Amino acid sequence: MQSAVTVLGLGPMGRSLARAFLDAGLSVTVWNRTPGRDHELVERGAVGAASAEEAVAASGLTVICVVNYDAADAVLRAAAVARALKGRTLVNLSADTPERARETGAWADRHGIRYLDGAIMTPTTTIGTAASVYLHSGPEDLYREHRPLLEALGGTHTHLGEDIGRAAAYDIALLDVFWTAMAGYAHAVALARAEGITARELAPFAQGIGAILPPLFAQTAADFDDGGFSGEGNPLTSGASSMAHIVHASEAHGIDAGVMRAAEGMARRAIGLGHGTDGFIRVAEVLGRHR
Amino acid sequence: MQSAVTVLGLGPMGRSLARAFLDAGLSVTVWNRTPGRDHELVERGAVGAASAEEAVAASGLTVICVVNYDAADAVLRAAAVARALKGRTLVNLSADTPERARETGAWADRHGIRYLDGAIMTPTTTIGTAASVYLHSGPEDLYREHRPLLEALGGTHTHLGEDIGRAAAYDIALLDVFWTAMAGYAHAVALARAEGITARELAPFAQGIGAILPPLFAQTAADFDDGGFSGEGNPLTSGASSMAHIVHASEAHGIDAGVMRAAEGMARRAIGLGHGTDGFIRVAEVLGRHR
Ligand SMILES: NC(=O)c1ccc[n+]([C@@H]2O[C@H](COP(=O)([O-])OP(=O)(O)OC[C@H]3O[C@@H](n4cnc5c(N)ncnc54)[C@H](OP(=O)(O)O)[C@@H]3O)[C@@H](O)[C@H]2O)c1
Ligand SMILES: NC(=O)c1ccc[n+]([C@@H]2O[C@H](COP(=O)([O-])OP(=O)(O)OC[C@H]3O[C@@H](n4cnc5c(N)ncnc54)[C@H](OP(=O)(O)O)[C@@H]3O)[C@@H](O)[C@H]2O)c1
Repeated sequence: MQSAVTVLGLGPMGRSLARAFLDAGLSVTVWNRTPGRDHELVERGAVGAASAEEAVAASGLTVICVVNYDAADAVLRAAAVARALKGRTLVNLSADTPERARETGAWADRHGIRYLDGAIMTPTTTIGTAASVYLHSGPEDLYREHRPLLEALGGTHTHLGEDIGRAAAYDIALLDVFWTAMAGYAHAVALARAEGITARELAPFAQGIGAILPPLFAQTAADFDDGGFSGEGNPLTSGASSMAHIVHASEAHGIDAGVMRAAEGMARRAIGLGHGTDGFIRVAEVLGRHR
Repeated sequence: MQSAVTVLGLGPMGRSLARAFLDAGLSVTVWNRTPGRDHELVERGAVGAASAEEAVAASGLTVICVVNYDAADAVLRAAAVARALKGRTLVNLSADTPERARETGAWADRHGIRYLDGAIMTPTTTIGTAASVYLHSGPEDLYREHRPLLEALGGTHTHLGEDIGRAAAYDIALLDVFWTAMAGYAHAVALARAEGITARELAPFAQGIGAILPPLFAQTAADFDDGGFSGEGNPLTSGASSMAHIVHASEAHGIDAGVMRAAEGMARRAIGLGHGTDGFIRVAEVLGRHR
């Protein structure tokens, strides 16, 4: 072993991780399926490996960050790579479902690979800074052993427990919030443009909307957990009415409103079930029924 | 006239507005379609009017805040109310489409009613505090005349121009961001519960996601206006992959994923059109095509 850490996958996120490890003064070996992605990292002192198995053999800890677990499997489950990983630690920071994380944990067990699963909750620009957020799950002692190295990435690291699927479960729930909000924002700037409003004009107010979300998230989380669905300050019927306006205004401009149609549908179903005077979070309870 | 301001509509928001006017030391007349909603306000010093026309006749400025413009029309377009409004100023803070706002502006003109349209962008709990946000549109001089009174509500007031539909246009675009994000959050807590995670456990991380949205909104607004769609830090294909995981994990728990299915559809269409290496905001440009 010549390196402290190996990074497999040099997309925007993998490159950011490798850069942060290098900036922390660690020796880093890197590899990517498509060659040529490691130039800047090698210039900064990383070792570019010729194959994934060579990269894995170079360090006691391998971090993989590729698009999803199909991609991770394509790299890791090659016989030579799995062999090279035996007795070493693998941290998978690729995003996928809890089911895939658990399945990968079982595969790692069968191959004598020490396995931690994780997720990155912040953009590439945060990596190596205090603003980055990482979730981890898997064996506590394994996490504790590699924590100093992982903390070289900066930011906040949270170990969510020994259930290997736990980080992925948080990840999909949080990405659900993220990508739905981004879809709403993309739709909003398209709608605003059709009304003669530039995205730059809208942005300061959209940022204001962004700022009211975190306290609402905290407040409605308590409501949801406790089964309190009071719509005292903002009844579901009022929200559904606004949603209908958005659909109408969007479609009147020929702009697809599928996301909002689906959101309004959630609200209308809850109203139809007799919850019109409840608060919006009632839709979460309705979504989860009959399971 | 015995009052400085009349408030029509005493839902959660109308009551908050009336309370803030009272707290600012103003004389306030109130009315609501369903009687009995004014008790607490009358105790605090408001005058409860017996009819909408009596309420309107009591003040030079009437603020109406009901569920939508169908409701506002049901109140305002009664012959006696329209007559009482003649020569007076009406500020409509109900939410609806820009089209309805413009149509109401034309109606007000025909009836000699001085008309401003507006929107409230923050929850009832902010009214009367520095955290409240109000948008206004309509004649500049009329806005300037009533601004001191409106500012008794506290917070930030922005006049967006003389086009009477402008406040409603901002309002629907901003509510689009708000309600889509809330729909995502409601779905996320349902999905998290199915994975054995409480909303309270998820909330701190969801608040973290909320905190990364405002800077992303500002950055992607500039991209969208300038036609720069670089996916350098986060390609559309990567987001679409995460969206598919969310749909899969949700439906595997029997939880409807209609909102995320629609959002993923937006991303897949943009990828299909050849924009897979672009950033997510490309979907906004694709949404607005062929208009
Ligand atoms: N970018 C962000 O802001 C961000 C934030 C949080 C989490 N994440 C997560 O981080 C992970 C990586 O994201 P990213 O931003 O780097 O971009 P990405 O487009 O999701 O992933 C690109 C990487 O995946 C590799 N890859 C794709 N298919 C492969 C296959 N079949 N076999 C081997 N490698 C394959 C690519 O290799 P090639 O170069 O050979 O195609 C490249 O290294 C994703 O799971 C993403 O959700 C990203
Ligand atoms: N609550 C918030 O956090 C919030 C935030 C920003 C903006 N807003 C906007 O403020 C407006 C008012 O919202 P809200 O929270 O007070 O609750 P709401 O449920 O939207 O509106 C309730 C009010 O509408 C009246 N109304 C409904 N249908 C009517 C009709 N056909 N004729 C006459 N009055 C009718 C109700 O009178 P009855 O009592 O007789 O039913 C009540 O006064 C909405 O446009 C909403 O989008 C609300």
